[in-house]
Amino acid sequence: MSKYAVVLAAGQGTRMKSKLYKVLHPVMGKPMVQHVVDQLKKLELKEIITIVGFGADKVQDQLGNDSRFVIQEEQLGTGHAVMQAEAILEDKDGTTIVVCGDTPLLTKETLQALLDHHQKEGAKATILTAKAQDPTGYGRVIRDEANDVERIVEHKDASSDELTVDEINTGTYCFDNRLLFESLKNVSNDNAQGEYYLPDVIHILRNQKQKISAFQSPTFDETIGVNDRVALSEAERMMKKRINQAHMRNGVTIIDPDHTYIEPDVTIEQDVTIYPGCVLSNGTTIKADSIIGPHTEISNCNVGMETVIRQSVVKDSYIGNRVQIGPFAHVRPDSNIGDEVKIGNFVEIKKASLETNSKVSHLSYIGDAEVGKRVNVGCGTITVNYDGKNKHLTKIEDDAFIGCNSNLIAPVTIGKGAYVAAGSTINEDVPNDALSIARARQINKEDYAKRMKK
Amino acid sequence: MSKYAVVLAAGQGTRMKSKLYKVLHPVMGKPMVQHVVDQLKKLELKEIITIVGFGADKVQDQLGNDSRFVIQEEQLGTGHAVMQAEAILEDKDGTTIVVCGDTPLLTKETLQALLDHHQKEGAKATILTAKAQDPTGYGRVIRDEANDVERIVEHKDASSDELTVDEINTGTYCFDNRLLFESLKNVSNDNAQGEYYLPDVIHILRNQKQKISAFQSPTFDETIGVNDRVALSEAERMMKKRINQAHMRNGVTIIDPDHTYIEPDVTIEQDVTIYPGCVLSNGTTIKADSIIGPHTEISNCNVGMETVIRQSVVKDSYIGNRVQIGPFAHVRPDSNIGDEVKIGNFVEIKKASLETNSKVSHLSYIGDAEVGKRVNVGCGTITVNYDGKNKHLTKIEDDAFIGCNSNLIAPVTIGKGAYVAAGSTINEDVPNDALSIARARQINKEDYAKRMKK
Amino acid sequence: MSKYAVVLAAGQGTRMKSKLYKVLHPVMGKPMVQHVVDQLKKLELKEIITIVGFGADKVQDQLGNDSRFVIQEEQLGTGHAVMQAEAILEDKDGTTIVVCGDTPLLTKETLQALLDHHQKEGAKATILTAKAQDPTGYGRVIRDEANDVERIVEHKDASSDELTVDEINTGTYCFDNRLLFESLKNVSNDNAQGEYYLPDVIHILRNQKQKISAFQSPTFDETIGVNDRVALSEAERMMKKRINQAHMRNGVTIIDPDHTYIEPDVTIEQDVTIYPGCVLSNGTTIKADSIIGPHTEISNCNVGMETVIRQSVVKDSYIGNRVQIGPFAHVRPDSNIGDEVKIGNFVEIKKASLETNSKVSHLSYIGDAEVGKRVNVGCGTITVNYDGKNKHLTKIEDDAFIGCNSNLIAPVTIGKGAYVAAGSTINEDVPNDALSIARARQINKEDYAKRMKK
Repeated sequence: MSKYAVVLAAGQGTRMKSKLYKVLHPVMGKPMVQHVVDQLKKLELKEIITIVGFGADKVQDQLGNDSRFVIQEEQLGTGHAVMQAEAILEDKDGTTIVVCGDTPLLTKETLQALLDHHQKEGAKATILTAKAQDPTGYGRVIRDEANDVERIVEHKDASSDELTVDEINTGTYCFDNRLLFESLKNVSNDNAQGEYYLPDVIHILRNQKQKISAFQSPTFDETIGVNDRVALSEAERMMKKRINQAHMRNGVTIIDPDHTYIEPDVTIEQDVTIYPGCVLSNGTTIKADSIIGPHTEISNCNVGMETVIRQSVVKDSYIGNRVQIGPFAHVRPDSNIGDEVKIGNFVEIKKASLETNSKVSHLSYIGDAEVGKRVNVGCGTITVNYDGKNKHLTKIEDDAFIGCNSNLIAPVTIGKGAYVAAGSTINEDVPNDALSIARARQINKEDYAKRMKK
Repeated sequence: MSKYAVVLAAGQGTRMKSKLYKVLHPVMGKPMVQHVVDQLKKLELKEIITIVGFGADKVQDQLGNDSRFVIQEEQLGTGHAVMQAEAILEDKDGTTIVVCGDTPLLTKETLQALLDHHQKEGAKATILTAKAQDPTGYGRVIRDEANDVERIVEHKDASSDELTVDEINTGTYCFDNRLLFESLKNVSNDNAQGEYYLPDVIHILRNQKQKISAFQSPTFDETIGVNDRVALSEAERMMKKRINQAHMRNGVTIIDPDHTYIEPDVTIEQDVTIYPGCVLSNGTTIKADSIIGPHTEISNCNVGMETVIRQSVVKDSYIGNRVQIGPFAHVRPDSNIGDEVKIGNFVEIKKASLETNSKVSHLSYIGDAEVGKRVNVGCGTITVNYDGKNKHLTKIEDDAFIGCNSNLIAPVTIGKGAYVAAGSTINEDVPNDALSIARARQINKEDYAKRMKK
Repeated sequence: MSKYAVVLAAGQGTRMKSKLYKVLHPVMGKPMVQHVVDQLKKLELKEIITIVGFGADKVQDQLGNDSRFVIQEEQLGTGHAVMQAEAILEDKDGTTIVVCGDTPLLTKETLQALLDHHQKEGAKATILTAKAQDPTGYGRVIRDEANDVERIVEHKDASSDELTVDEINTGTYCFDNRLLFESLKNVSNDNAQGEYYLPDVIHILRNQKQKISAFQSPTFDETIGVNDRVALSEAERMMKKRINQAHMRNGVTIIDPDHTYIEPDVTIEQDVTIYPGCVLSNGTTIKADSIIGPHTEISNCNVGMETVIRQSVVKDSYIGNRVQIGPFAHVRPDSNIGDEVKIGNFVEIKKASLETNSKVSHLSYIGDAEVGKRVNVGCGTITVNYDGKNKHLTKIEDDAFIGCNSNLIAPVTIGKGAYVAAGSTINEDVPNDALSIARARQINKEDYAKRMKK
């Protein structure tokens, strides 16, 4: 049986009060609609069709090849939205799952279970329901004696008996595809809002004595739709918890999972410890036994094993094994930090490579540089990489020793084993094993300080 | 009908275990009693009278002109405290609301609803009640058949039936003003503590067949009184949640509202994103589309639009549009950061102005300085503003380029378009378009480093 | 009556997915088994015997003299584990308490209450039970008419009636010591896992008509065992809450106790305020009226009164009274910071003493140094303590003034009242009251910058 998905992503989401279209608001760094489509992609679907409207271009840019797109020019209700897929789907046999683009917590497991239930039951439509602790405001799912669905009743239309029903319609459905599009033609907009509602399809099918089933989601949380930023923060909290529990079950110690922010595409090996306040994002990987945080941001990095990164910001770089970074270090993009390197406090590394065992312990800027092995970069060293027009390269070869507060005016090479005296401004290459010095002699003027004070 | 408020703020709060008087302990940066008075000020009251005792001077300093004050010399109970307002209020017609100074979460909406209820019911006294999940320890409000209040029964005196009542006395009341002060004269201190209790007024009025009503607060949380620092942290948590939800509903994305600390007087425009761990305080305003955090403190600043401030501390300054600050920057008071300025890592700005498009990207101190447009301040630059006695001004004019690790010894002016060579210590003005250099020549001593090692 | 304890600490804890043995995983910085033993040590026990197996050496290293150890070579169940103590305990009269090494939240108060209950009831065995909100998976404690224990029934063996029992076996017990070891000999491993189970002792004793009692823990939380890292993070959360509430009740303001990490051995005096994101560890003490945080780590320090430490990392040091540190400062081990000292942003202090009233306000490194009173260390000052081979000492005597961006090449002494000019590299001692200068003269080349641009 072929399976299809229709993702409803055309709404503006006025309650978000945002220039950004609702389904593009991120949850743990990933737009809501991408979460939905990423889960759908893991099912065996023949086609995913996303209905776009407000911000259509942006949504299409986001999803790219993950979906086909149909534009809903006017926003005339959920039924009208699904109807836009008619040209593509109308004549297909199979099952179509309809999902809202603002339900970022739905998992592939639940969606698969919904599809399986639909098929097993031989239903023509199946509603994904959930048990709500407080069902106020939700449409209630009323079951018949056969435990099938009799109808969905909106909160405002519910009798007092129906109001006690705590099984609610989540807005996710499976349909027999042909019946879906046939029924949609009969949905009317004869209601207060003048909209075409998708749940009307349920009632049309039921009137045709078709079997309508309901599948209850294992948790309510998974089914929430996000309509304002309070709900967005709730979705963020739940997604964070889900991700962090998976890492913990996998052997990662997270000291405070409520306050550790790990995006879904981050990989962390066993026996890594993560202290509070860390933000790990953009496909970062961290190998075994490393210690991260507190208060560390790592984005798009590969971090080695037994490495320690504390109170620091690290982006778009490779970090080796047994490296020590921080506290208060900033590793900027395109850096390559070798094994056993130490990057200490108040150090910025940018577009630089440092080979094994080198140290930049304090108050330094190493930018546009190639640093060899066992190099000691003294406190306050600056690679002067910018002359106001262009950026130039600094090379520091193996075993060199750079004295404190030195300026290395690029392009310049400090040769192997060379020694730059503290306080020197170096603008010519230093040969291997040479000592280079560029500073004025010290003069002590006796009692001058005392006189100055008077 | 004239309305008055009496705020009870005389207690010491021994369970706080603090030198600071209880009602002065802050919740989200504002003393509890100030929260109470700020809400009262939004009602149309003829007079707010605060009863002060312990720390009277400090409480009066805090509230200033927001209230009149009466001193309660001895702490003889809540009834005795209200009695202190007798000389001011005794002969007034109208309604008096009595509020404790340790209930920082009460809102003007609830207080107004209490007053409205009192008036609508034609009651002579109205108790603000709340439904408690666990009423243990609280006075229970016992209603009669007419749904009026029959009496308040203290937990310890309650029958087993009364103990099941979950409507509790919050300690906030409305009274007919004249009846209040008449009744107070009849309150006795014939009890174990030898104190005059305000709830006795309720019983005196009831015995006079006066109508006593009860108005139930929409939430219990709002009514909590703070008696120790555990409760203080709970109040902080609830106030934080209230503030953050209002911002989110208003179009601000707060990634983790549990870990974002925004004081009540902060203004944030739509589509600002706030990462975890931020502390925003002292009337800070942030314009649309800016990104703040993680782990950023901003106090008393105006921040422009599309500005990004990360892992930094910024105080008492103006920050323009499209500015980038951090990570790990410190902008100290009286700074004025122009549009499109960049302040990078390990940079301190103090009492300095930087005009449009200037950059101080790393490891610099710019203090007591005026920096023009399009200035590039190289890494490690220091304005030497202090000679041990006085602070002096550094001026860097438009389009100047300051080489790395330069010292600019103030008072000094670097002219328009001038260029200071890296590693220079500048103690004389540099003319427009000049190159200034102050450094020793480099000498390379061949093989010297190799010999040193031996 | 003599009392003994047996701590079960031999398991590997495969669900932890860790190279570290389960009971060594820390909760608030202290290994779980150490928490257990620390509580036991506060009871009056004649002997604590820890059964070790996996990671025996490491567990023994951790507990040291706090316990005797017996090795369980094979892991054949909890009954088998206790049996290992037979050689030591078998012939003793008295009471033996058996505790698992993975229950870090158990308090001495509950353990003492368990022992007292056991003795008062004259029981031969007493089970520590707890009321579980969701007892799924736990062994249920079935009581008889006399309120004694009839048996423990495992979840999988429970009848539907028994499944509704919410009093669960926590795995902590008191036994009559002789009866314990006699019964253990009769425990069989005739079960699916082929293990010897300690609860079987309960059934053996019951069959002998011995009195089996149950003592219910005041909270369920206290009794949880940690089997995976999700539970570990829960234990961490509860321990954090317990510690923080104790500090708050003691007069410490903790702005956000959910997000403040204080190890159990930290001492904090009254009226200290702790902002969010702080990590206080390793026996740190903080005196009255100090302000810590946000986002500050302090490990193994004594911090004085009225001191402020913000956004900083401080380790293994003494910090005086009225000191200001941060934001973004790093005080490394073996430092001694005198009263009223200021350590500002981007400053690293290492193995240095600073006496009263000295200031290192910005962008400096003071390592291996002795700094006197009232010294002003200018911005960008570096103690050049390392020549590539050895570390040397810098002395800066009282009232000296170090100009900005100076290098002090150790070993070197700056005399009392001496003045080092900004930008100087100092490699010889500076006499008292002398001015020392080591820099090149400034040369301005007119229009050179303009020409360079072309």
